Amino acid sequence: MRHHIGEQTIRFESRPAITAVASVVGPKEGEGPLGQLFDKVEPDMMAGTQSWEKAESDFARQGIDLAVKRAGLEIKDIQYILAGDLLNQSIGSTFGVRSFERPFFGLFGACSTIGEALALGAMLVDGECADNVAISASSHFCAAERTFRFPLELGVQRPLTSSWTVTGDGCMVISSEGEGPGITAATAGKIIDMGIRDANNMGAAMAPAAADVLVRHFQDLKITPDYYDAIATGDLGRYGLEILKRLMEERELPLGDRATDCGVMIFDNETQDTHAGGSGPACSAVTFASYFYPRLKEGVIRRMLFIPTGALMNSMTSQQGESIPAIAHAIAIESQ
Amino acid sequence: MRHHIGEQTIRFESRPAITAVASVVGPKEGEGPLGQLFDKVEPDMMAGTQSWEKAESDFARQGIDLAVKRAGLEIKDIQYILAGDLLNQSIGSTFGVRSFERPFFGLFGACSTIGEALALGAMLVDGECADNVAISASSHFCAAERTFRFPLELGVQRPLTSSWTVTGDGCMVISSEGEGPGITAATAGKIIDMGIRDANNMGAAMAPAAADVLVRHFQDLKITPDYYDAIATGDLGRYGLEILKRLMEERELPLGDRATDCGVMIFDNETQDTHAGGSGPACSAVTFASYFYPRLKEGVIRRMLFIPTGALMNSMTSQQGESIPAIAHAIAIESQ
Repeated sequence: MRHHIGEQTIRFESRPAITAVASVVGPKEGEGPLGQLFDKVEPDMMAGTQSWEKAESDFARQGIDLAVKRAGLEIKDIQYILAGDLLNQSIGSTFGVRSFERPFFGLFGACSTIGEALALGAMLVDGECADNVAISASSHFCAAERTFRFPLELGVQRPLTSSWTVTGDGCMVISSEGEGPGITAATAGKIIDMGIRDANNMGAAMAPAAADVLVRHFQDLKITPDYYDAIATGDLGRYGLEILKRLMEERELPLGDRATDCGVMIFDNETQDTHAGGSGPACSAVTFASYFYPRLKEGVIRRMLFIPTGALMNSMTSQQGESIPAIAHAIAIESQ
Repeated sequence: MRHHIGEQTIRFESRPAITAVASVVGPKEGEGPLGQLFDKVEPDMMAGTQSWEKAESDFARQGIDLAVKRAGLEIKDIQYILAGDLLNQSIGSTFGVRSFERPFFGLFGACSTIGEALALGAMLVDGECADNVAISASSHFCAAERTFRFPLELGVQRPLTSSWTVTGDGCMVISSEGEGPGITAATAGKIIDMGIRDANNMGAAMAPAAADVLVRHFQDLKITPDYYDAIATGDLGRYGLEILKRLMEERELPLGDRATDCGVMIFDNETQDTHAGGSGPACSAVTFASYFYPRLKEGVIRRMLFIPTGALMNSMTSQQGESIPAIAHAIAIESQ
């Protein structure tokens, strides 16, 4: 193996470049703190289609289409599309990429999907198995609610630890050539299950997985959190982020002020009533694409560690009394 | 890119080796024509657990455990586990691999999953991003029926074109060193949707995807079907296989007698009432592991093209009037 370091980390000497990104979101995201930064805010939750699921697929289609064009490529230049989402049998992605007619690998990493896609995409490019890969992660609030929770029409009250699924799609193009921030290392995560059973407190279930992969990342590369200008988890939310910070302090690797969470950034709880924060595969994908990517490109952030987090349960496993397995992947991205 | 040939094919000069396989199946598969070839036939559809879903996870756990041991490795020697299944949010795999505590990438390719995993696993090993990868695909008849069709208790009559989801897990270890048949090429498939809407006739929906990737494979490598001793699709079933053969004749690449389908092989319709044949991610995975792998190892089959096929819909897309997108990946495997 080239460049494997420590137990779980791979260092990409070739620095596969993220040459373009795209973020397409729904109306609530457009009204949030990052509203002005998204490439497209779709005012209609149906996106002109006839169902929330079809709308999610259309977000994915738009995201990939836009990112590929921005990379100065045509879709035929993309060797592989890697995409995933939260719906049953990943229909958000499969119906979204259907029209592109390009080789497709479906991923399932729940809300960690864009992290899994960044790791695999970088490996395909670094290993010279592809020149250009497009990766995408999507979710839709209404479609996710009916898949995982209650019919929206019931108006069920949500506990304060619950999160709000982001509507949208985040896409990136990873290339062997071209300009853009480089993926310099990836620490793929293990499934960690600490026995949390409350599906309304995903942050608590996922924080230990984030801590596990972060500790491994720092130990493998023999660095400390201050190596990075920014450390951003996917969708732990405000309570999960607190837990993570405490866990990292206990492990003597305090994250400090450079740590944030995409789920905390994307909504304003004071005015948007989103409780713990945003979640869903699109949460970290669109936050990275809209907020972090331009800052990495400009060099305002020089080194970033991006840790999309995912809870790998479904509604039936909760009914069957199972705890919530979680995963997180740590991806190091540095300015060119 | 190293070794990309034509439009969609990658040739692996390093020939990543399938050093070990494992097949764990349920009672019906054990009574079928391949019954004596499986590593383990579990007599209990619950596998000693309390639900069909937990049983499927246990099959996945057993399959991976057995294949890794057979490869002469410990689980810590596996850099990445790539696994997928058919259940909502891929819980068959995630709960199955949870106890291994190894870096995990969840895949969703429906019944084509083991093909996707072979392609990606070979790329990771060929690209020197991993020395050892474990891949797994699982399914469970009862869990799939209630996910996609009707409660078993209803006893709904099944049309003759419907298939029977295979219960079990097929696992393989792909390594940069060690003995075993080598993965010599992979043609990753595009999503093909010919407008088929009948969820009880998956063979018809998937056959055009298999034909598309086969034509591409032969054209890219400038070979004809007679290059291979065996060409086996995943779970087209008897009607889908007929359609595929006709499509390939029309394209002047007749497959001839070397073409078969794992779904046709795994059950005996005369005595097992399985109609079109077996299906599910485990269908092609356990048929390859039990029947084809030993023959490749012994050299009885020298060159094989393995084409796991998948239908990328769910029950809601059918309710919303959508057609069935399908995909297939063609993996060339040759004796050492």
